[in-house]
Amino acid sequence: MSFDVNAVRADFPILSTTVNGRPLVYLDSGASAQKPRVVIDAITRAYEGEYANVHRGLHYLSNLATDNYERVRGIIARFLNAPAVDEVIFTSGSTEALNLVSYAWAAPRLQAGDEIVLSLLEHHANIVPWHFLRERQGVVLKWVEPDADGSLPPEKVLAAITPRTRMLALTHMSNVTGTVVDIAAIRRGTDLPMVVDGSQAAVHMPVDLSTLGADFYCITGHKLYGPSGSGAIWIRADRQAEMRPFLGGGDMIRTVSRDAVTYNDPPLRFEAGTPGIVNQIGLGAALEYMMSLGMENIAAHERALRDHARDRLRALNWLQVQGDAPGKGAIFSMTMDGAHAHDISTILDKKGIAVRAGSHCAMPLMEHLAINASARASFAMYNTQADVDALVEGLIFCRELFA
Amino acid sequence: MSFDVNAVRADFPILSTTVNGRPLVYLDSGASAQKPRVVIDAITRAYEGEYANVHRGLHYLSNLATDNYERVRGIIARFLNAPAVDEVIFTSGSTEALNLVSYAWAAPRLQAGDEIVLSLLEHHANIVPWHFLRERQGVVLKWVEPDADGSLPPEKVLAAITPRTRMLALTHMSNVTGTVVDIAAIRRGTDLPMVVDGSQAAVHMPVDLSTLGADFYCITGHKLYGPSGSGAIWIRADRQAEMRPFLGGGDMIRTVSRDAVTYNDPPLRFEAGTPGIVNQIGLGAALEYMMSLGMENIAAHERALRDHARDRLRALNWLQVQGDAPGKGAIFSMTMDGAHAHDISTILDKKGIAVRAGSHCAMPLMEHLAINASARASFAMYNTQADVDALVEGLIFCRELFA
Repeated sequence: MSFDVNAVRADFPILSTTVNGRPLVYLDSGASAQKPRVVIDAITRAYEGEYANVHRGLHYLSNLATDNYERVRGIIARFLNAPAVDEVIFTSGSTEALNLVSYAWAAPRLQAGDEIVLSLLEHHANIVPWHFLRERQGVVLKWVEPDADGSLPPEKVLAAITPRTRMLALTHMSNVTGTVVDIAAIRRGTDLPMVVDGSQAAVHMPVDLSTLGADFYCITGHKLYGPSGSGAIWIRADRQAEMRPFLGGGDMIRTVSRDAVTYNDPPLRFEAGTPGIVNQIGLGAALEYMMSLGMENIAAHERALRDHARDRLRALNWLQVQGDAPGKGAIFSMTMDGAHAHDISTILDKKGIAVRAGSHCAMPLMEHLAINASARASFAMYNTQADVDALVEGLIFCRELFA
Repeated sequence: MSFDVNAVRADFPILSTTVNGRPLVYLDSGASAQKPRVVIDAITRAYEGEYANVHRGLHYLSNLATDNYERVRGIIARFLNAPAVDEVIFTSGSTEALNLVSYAWAAPRLQAGDEIVLSLLEHHANIVPWHFLRERQGVVLKWVEPDADGSLPPEKVLAAITPRTRMLALTHMSNVTGTVVDIAAIRRGTDLPMVVDGSQAAVHMPVDLSTLGADFYCITGHKLYGPSGSGAIWIRADRQAEMRPFLGGGDMIRTVSRDAVTYNDPPLRFEAGTPGIVNQIGLGAALEYMMSLGMENIAAHERALRDHARDRLRALNWLQVQGDAPGKGAIFSMTMDGAHAHDISTILDKKGIAVRAGSHCAMPLMEHLAINASARASFAMYNTQADVDALVEGLIFCRELFA
């Protein structure tokens, strides 16, 4: 199947709007992606004619909503090539997912002095839940620094492991530098439990959980062209068996009495209360859309965007781009002498170009890079080479303004 | 303003659909309510033209989405007459809200032997988080039984308090019997922290947090005619100050380094990661819709429905209705000798009537009532007296089938 970016763009209503009188050039998909018509339609269809609460009803609408909702578990399993559908746990996004791992798996197991190895490429979502364990129970965080080009050599991760290491927490793709971490290679060097944050990677490349080597792998729907509040974490069954419940409420129990409570089987054990029913139905539509385009095709399109952007940005010798690891994703974090990242973002915005400025929820990395903030252009499947060119023109305009 | 139920019904697309060839009679709003056109349109509008991630962007769409999202905090504060907008914390629903209170406020404070007073009217969402504290740290749950008519006299709640009581966890309206609990009267008898589950009450009656006397009050969007995964908890500022963070990730921090983390001010301190942006925008539309109709008008309409249903169901002398507390909501849990609740639900469904059957996430109450399951008809602002009559006809049909 060929990938027609113009056809893809036509599927996203917001991409034909204007911002400040200019056609929108949306380069902030790393923060959150826009939604295709099929996702918006799936939400509308659910609420207009197929809505009720799930699991606990016997009537037509409840059964229909349950079928539509539970079907998404299989779509996610297919999208990630997960070994088993029941290993997919719905969450509201990666933050809830990683906190689930921290509270339900790690907190009851890790003792004071036990170590967690994590990389400096991590997003706060894959840092703060582990800081909680440091603050509350004396767990030690061991940081692995990326190389100067932003890459994270597997051997550096493995070298950080000591006899006190109990788990690894690693991103699959940095949201700042685009670095792709070779999880499979790390797995070949260790049997330790590995928590992988797939929030960025799963959007941009095929993920095969049957061979990756993760124990825990989370995705977040809003970056996957899906709705707010959708997402999932895949947890291998043996790790699920080691977890205690996290959120308590309906659906996750089998019996509740005054004096006792027994819990449902996984995955429901880890899904408390009325879930994000329609959010997840929308996520299912988003993932089916992506699979219909083909993840390899999406990845190839984005590689071409990355190469074009890299070449054009390299030519701007007054611009610093953070990270240039081989195989990186199409994410560019940039600084410019004399212009603050926030100014760059504000000026680009006047030209209809949306980029993010700040620390990108990755302060330890920013500290390592010795910058306070960067302007980040993050590309997605609906971006074009013309978007890259618009960015470059905008940056040149900034440079002229501030130089 | 007069309340025109037919005009209201016309605002809900799903209510003009058919189920099993019959016009839908939706009596399962206690599990989840249907959504008006304004909510569906708000979601569509957001995704089609006003979407980006919030808080962390400087570009037009991010600012617009942030404004639309943050505006909902004020709508919720107005809806509940909360003393301060910053006391409103967004959640994915009541389950997350009550777990927030359990993990962030109660768990670090309650010791083995400390007591929580809760009523047998509670939903599992307001039970299981406290069972966690019993299981994990030896907290004692003290149960208050309702009277035979389902009412919960404030003096019985107060009588359960001992010197070891550290908090009360109470529903504002039972999802099984419709009992309204007089929180203000309980407050007059105790200064103890009070967690109130407003999941049902806030849908059906005006709530005034400035006089109610709760310390914590949660609402769940999907029952309030809002989207999946929306909701909030109001927490008085002094209680917020006593809480440690719960979910860790972006937005809830101020600084993160390798060795330390500092936290944002409330309410953001308790809102980790990319929130349910569009879900909450939809909830804002739902609450504005309810306020435009008038909560007093909605309550009056539902009182009339309740009275009609009570009169007609009382006339069925082979039907048992659980609870008949004065001032109860329009929720009727029913059993019939010779017919299982699941059979009742299934047969009513053939006539297009959606009722729920089961234990309604309230097993301790079901045990107290000495029933395994009931069929529950729960009414909402869009129901009519004709819906009541259809239910009664359907029940008579069941009776004839099984008698």
